[in-house]
Amino acid sequence: MANDIQARLPAIGTPTLSSQLIKHGLRQSYLSGPRRLIGEKTVCGPAFTLRFVPARDDKAVPASYGWPGALPAAIDAAPPGSIVVIDARGHPAAGTVGDIFADRLRLKGVKAIVSDGVVRDLPGLRQVGLAIWASGTASPPSIGGLSFAGWGEPIGCGDAAIWPGDLIVADEDGVLVVPPELAEAVAIGGEKQNRFELWVQKRVAAGAQLVGLYPANETTLAEFDADDAARTA
Amino acid sequence: MANDIQARLPAIGTPTLSSQLIKHGLRQSYLSGPRRLIGEKTVCGPAFTLRFVPARDDKAVPASYGWPGALPAAIDAAPPGSIVVIDARGHPAAGTVGDIFADRLRLKGVKAIVSDGVVRDLPGLRQVGLAIWASGTASPPSIGGLSFAGWGEPIGCGDAAIWPGDLIVADEDGVLVVPPELAEAVAIGGEKQNRFELWVQKRVAAGAQLVGLYPANETTLAEFDADDAARTA
Amino acid sequence: MANDIQARLPAIGTPTLSSQLIKHGLRQSYLSGPRRLIGEKTVCGPAFTLRFVPARDDKAVPASYGWPGALPAAIDAAPPGSIVVIDARGHPAAGTVGDIFADRLRLKGVKAIVSDGVVRDLPGLRQVGLAIWASGTASPPSIGGLSFAGWGEPIGCGDAAIWPGDLIVADEDGVLVVPPELAEAVAIGGEKQNRFELWVQKRVAAGAQLVGLYPANETTLAEFDADDAARTA
Amino acid sequence: MANDIQARLPAIGTPTLSSQLIKHGLRQSYLSGPRRLIGEKTVCGPAFTLRFVPARDDKAVPASYGWPGALPAAIDAAPPGSIVVIDARGHPAAGTVGDIFADRLRLKGVKAIVSDGVVRDLPGLRQVGLAIWASGTASPPSIGGLSFAGWGEPIGCGDAAIWPGDLIVADEDGVLVVPPELAEAVAIGGEKQNRFELWVQKRVAAGAQLVGLYPANETTLAEFDADDAARTA
Amino acid sequence: MANDIQARLPAIGTPTLSSQLIKHGLRQSYLSGPRRLIGEKTVCGPAFTLRFVPARDDKAVPASYGWPGALPAAIDAAPPGSIVVIDARGHPAAGTVGDIFADRLRLKGVKAIVSDGVVRDLPGLRQVGLAIWASGTASPPSIGGLSFAGWGEPIGCGDAAIWPGDLIVADEDGVLVVPPELAEAVAIGGEKQNRFELWVQKRVAAGAQLVGLYPANETTLAEFDADDAARTA
Amino acid sequence: MANDIQARLPAIGTPTLSSQLIKHGLRQSYLSGPRRLIGEKTVCGPAFTLRFVPARDDKAVPASYGWPGALPAAIDAAPPGSIVVIDARGHPAAGTVGDIFADRLRLKGVKAIVSDGVVRDLPGLRQVGLAIWASGTASPPSIGGLSFAGWGEPIGCGDAAIWPGDLIVADEDGVLVVPPELAEAVAIGGEKQNRFELWVQKRVAAGAQLVGLYPANETTLAEFDADDAARTA
Repeated sequence: MANDIQARLPAIGTPTLSSQLIKHGLRQSYLSGPRRLIGEKTVCGPAFTLRFVPARDDKAVPASYGWPGALPAAIDAAPPGSIVVIDARGHPAAGTVGDIFADRLRLKGVKAIVSDGVVRDLPGLRQVGLAIWASGTASPPSIGGLSFAGWGEPIGCGDAAIWPGDLIVADEDGVLVVPPELAEAVAIGGEKQNRFELWVQKRVAAGAQLVGLYPANETTLAEFDADDAARTA
Repeated sequence: MANDIQARLPAIGTPTLSSQLIKHGLRQSYLSGPRRLIGEKTVCGPAFTLRFVPARDDKAVPASYGWPGALPAAIDAAPPGSIVVIDARGHPAAGTVGDIFADRLRLKGVKAIVSDGVVRDLPGLRQVGLAIWASGTASPPSIGGLSFAGWGEPIGCGDAAIWPGDLIVADEDGVLVVPPELAEAVAIGGEKQNRFELWVQKRVAAGAQLVGLYPANETTLAEFDADDAARTA
Repeated sequence: MANDIQARLPAIGTPTLSSQLIKHGLRQSYLSGPRRLIGEKTVCGPAFTLRFVPARDDKAVPASYGWPGALPAAIDAAPPGSIVVIDARGHPAAGTVGDIFADRLRLKGVKAIVSDGVVRDLPGLRQVGLAIWASGTASPPSIGGLSFAGWGEPIGCGDAAIWPGDLIVADEDGVLVVPPELAEAVAIGGEKQNRFELWVQKRVAAGAQLVGLYPANETTLAEFDADDAARTA
Repeated sequence: MANDIQARLPAIGTPTLSSQLIKHGLRQSYLSGPRRLIGEKTVCGPAFTLRFVPARDDKAVPASYGWPGALPAAIDAAPPGSIVVIDARGHPAAGTVGDIFADRLRLKGVKAIVSDGVVRDLPGLRQVGLAIWASGTASPPSIGGLSFAGWGEPIGCGDAAIWPGDLIVADEDGVLVVPPELAEAVAIGGEKQNRFELWVQKRVAAGAQLVGLYPANETTLAEFDADDAARTA
Repeated sequence: MANDIQARLPAIGTPTLSSQLIKHGLRQSYLSGPRRLIGEKTVCGPAFTLRFVPARDDKAVPASYGWPGALPAAIDAAPPGSIVVIDARGHPAAGTVGDIFADRLRLKGVKAIVSDGVVRDLPGLRQVGLAIWASGTASPPSIGGLSFAGWGEPIGCGDAAIWPGDLIVADEDGVLVVPPELAEAVAIGGEKQNRFELWVQKRVAAGAQLVGLYPANETTLAEFDADDAARTA
Repeated sequence: MANDIQARLPAIGTPTLSSQLIKHGLRQSYLSGPRRLIGEKTVCGPAFTLRFVPARDDKAVPASYGWPGALPAAIDAAPPGSIVVIDARGHPAAGTVGDIFADRLRLKGVKAIVSDGVVRDLPGLRQVGLAIWASGTASPPSIGGLSFAGWGEPIGCGDAAIWPGDLIVADEDGVLVVPPELAEAVAIGGEKQNRFELWVQKRVAAGAQLVGLYPANETTLAEFDADDAARTA
């Protein structure tokens, strides 16, 4: 079912999923900041989290990559099918991912990278081709502004909180986090919402006014439910 | 004449118009924030204003669309030929316009949407094709961060103030507000400024230095005025 | 040698150069803010600096261009082969460069413009074709928010400090400042780093893990050095 | 009862009230920005709203005060017992209230002024003595950065939304908005919460650990309820 | 007369002076950011400007103080009676002034320090007692985030532009810059405005409404002018 | 020795310590943001870290306090003599500490609380009396904007990185982090620097100029070293 969900959610799209999450009381599931830099497809997968803290000159040195829990070990540990989500504290000038890390992740079967900070070496990253959502690009490496702090932990990313294993959905409008236990309900609600919006679009195209139609009043809902039942019967 | 002005201002372009407005003492007529997301043409029309305030959980719910003065009624009320200008308080993650609202506006003859916040469902909006200037795109609906407060009022948008009926001009450089009572003077001044800049460009291309030429000293102005009079004679 | 360096640095690219500068203790050499607006090539040249301060209504008037030390004189003074670097204090809505200034600079042999503020008349600037890195575009002229203060001085640009004559390197990832006295050392180190990264990429493509490889431990470094010596022998 | 509520809410305090509002699903009821500048008491009263938009040079002139709906008329219209809440769009350098406006409001029986912007003439305002919560102080008048847009409308203030008549509670920790229809429930819940916290404080002072105590598990709650019932019996 | 002006302007106060400057078309004369940290009196004097740019590790070292144009030489050069105005680019964590520099300035007869950044060693600065307006306090020295770039130049400070020799007026509401050529006109206008506001305060205290009174309509102005002429006769 | 260092560092003060840390290459050891809210003394102790991420409505509920790793357990685990350092991601409106948590920490022998966010119930916290450095105060509880994520981890706080056990020094100028392995060297250097600055202050008070004196040239240093050796002999 998990794989099934990972196919259904991208087909619904993040705008509709966001509306459904709000209906379930989740108002902070959108990652404000990351936008699509590389890739054309909508992706969905469980989050594998990386966490950075601000740089400290005695920690943010090339030698700091050497310890067992350091960033290279984290990259090596990213599981196939996951989406790597990076808490870069929104740093605008410390690129946490370059082409070598990205290619390693691609070869491991990771689906995408999401960061609230920047990536570096955009031409190289394009050659690698792994899908990336980030806030932009910059030249300096992560140690130019950040220190790696750990992986597999709860993180903040783009003012949303991500727990490891949360479902991530990312498309041209941005990135959403979906708690796994809500995924099925959100998918069912979202698929119906999309059918409803298609039905509304035709009415609007035919000149209908919005009041009463969208959002729907009871009459409209009854009409849609009848049409929807007939079509899906 | 109003229609005439609405044809002349776009031909002048927002950079020249902005310089002219400064000459008339208007230093805050540029809407800092909105940039062109959809559309290739320069547009001009009177502002139809929508106003949002921050979300409040007891107001920002789907049911809040139901009252007579709510957002759907405002969309239905937008007049043909107008430009819908949205005060979204610069919210980066609450999309005040999606494809259904945009298509309804397009069918009503609205020329463009301008917002200091974000829009949602960018692929759907591209299909609709209505011209849009906004600060970006995001997945959540307006109720994810904003509550609708009213329409047809003075608003702030991108650190500029817009009164209903003000002329809006938007092109690739951004969006300007032009008070209607200044439009004729600004158009005349702008058309002359553009003729002057073309005249300057030729001199620069021929190797002239800028000092004395641009901005022009009295000798330069006299030369230009003579050439301009000859050409337009 | 200076010209040689100006050819070698762009071939290395700003991400690698940034890493090298950090190895030399320079952690603030990246200009956070300016991004590539016009041009496809990497550029390198000595900085020619322009400095703006906030607008003051008694200074920021068209007549303020008239004095001998004003902006037009500064543009006329830009030396061939230089890169014009503008301290616009990050102003988002005061375009310090338009098409006439850009064309004059292009004709003088200037290689590029870099600004932490915005430029104006993007269509006109594209026609001119001079390479530009800036934080965006806006309609108003510089006097809409800034006053010109001088040229050939130390400036801040994008949270980096630029001294006149510093080497500037700009590519798709952004803009770096390289102190001339470090350029040779940075070039040698950067060229070796790029050879090393190509060598690593092949190993990663072959399935190697990152731990021990990148960053390299002593074994890896010895292997690379042997391969590198063999290849360059 | 309304007056009774206006006495009970200040005795509870904004921290406890804020927790209660969250329990009712209201997560955006705190006005982030305004802090106590003048006054020592906690105040509570219905909101009387003023709204500003960014300055425009053709509107933000002294003469703009002359029309019937202008700021002086709004000040004259403020009802006794109300709290004037000002949407100044967080402007840091345009003082919307000085000593003359404040004294007029004090004489009309207004309880306090709340603004997400700044006030001006702090020594004069101290002499007037009307309680003020704002983001700071600045010299320029409102027309230095803002234009008055209207009163008695829904506004944003400090990232919260205020509808006219909402209850405002302000103390040293800041300013809250309480929807009138929730006030009674929030007061009852808050009074009990404060009794509970006093009960907890004694246990903590006696050396109790927090786990299980605060927040309370079921055993703790049962103990408190028994003690609370005994005391209020 | 200059000294006379320097006595008259503080007696008027920055709120009134700011209104007068707006009447003369100067809308950016307030230094948004610096607030009074040390001192109780209003000060006025000509600006002596210091300018910093962002730190660069090869420039921002203790040795950088050694060159003839460095910060110590600038401090030594500050003229008696002046106000030292520092362009620290608003840096929140690089203290450009500590107790030794402040005491040297005090002994030289400098009246005050104004900075859009922070100062350091607040207890030491209090002992020195020189009046200071700044955005706060921090521990690190200037080289922790800034490099000294020069003195006696036009600068930006708190989003205002300061030319050397401009008059600075600073009180509890903040800091204003007054162009010397406008000082006399502003003083005359400000003194009359203050007499008018005292006259209005009495009417307000007597229960007058604001509409027509403040701002004044023609009747009110005539009444005030008559009273004012009688009093000053 | 650790205790000895914890007595010596506060006597040196954060401005001098910050200069010493820069001499050791540590440029990001100041916590920009937290300022002294409660307490008059300088404190020093090892960091005990708490970490928050943005709120998520399915995590940030009162029930979220119940799990074994939750915030109450973290508070109970804070060791005597430590300083609790909170990564609140700079949230301006979610108070991570109130009077009950503060009193529990005080009774456990914790020396102070440092947060880059806000605290709540300032009157209650004053009664508790535990020293607090934070960015301000607000009414809402942590769950109003944050979710607790763990303790005893590396964190970011005020743009500095804190590893558990790092030494924290906090006084009126702000908060510094000192890596334990550098503490002895920094203390020795700082004590000498303070003796030097006292020596300089006397010279400045006697009218000496700064150039050559502060920072010191070789002659000055030799004079000071001779005096210092004589005094400490």
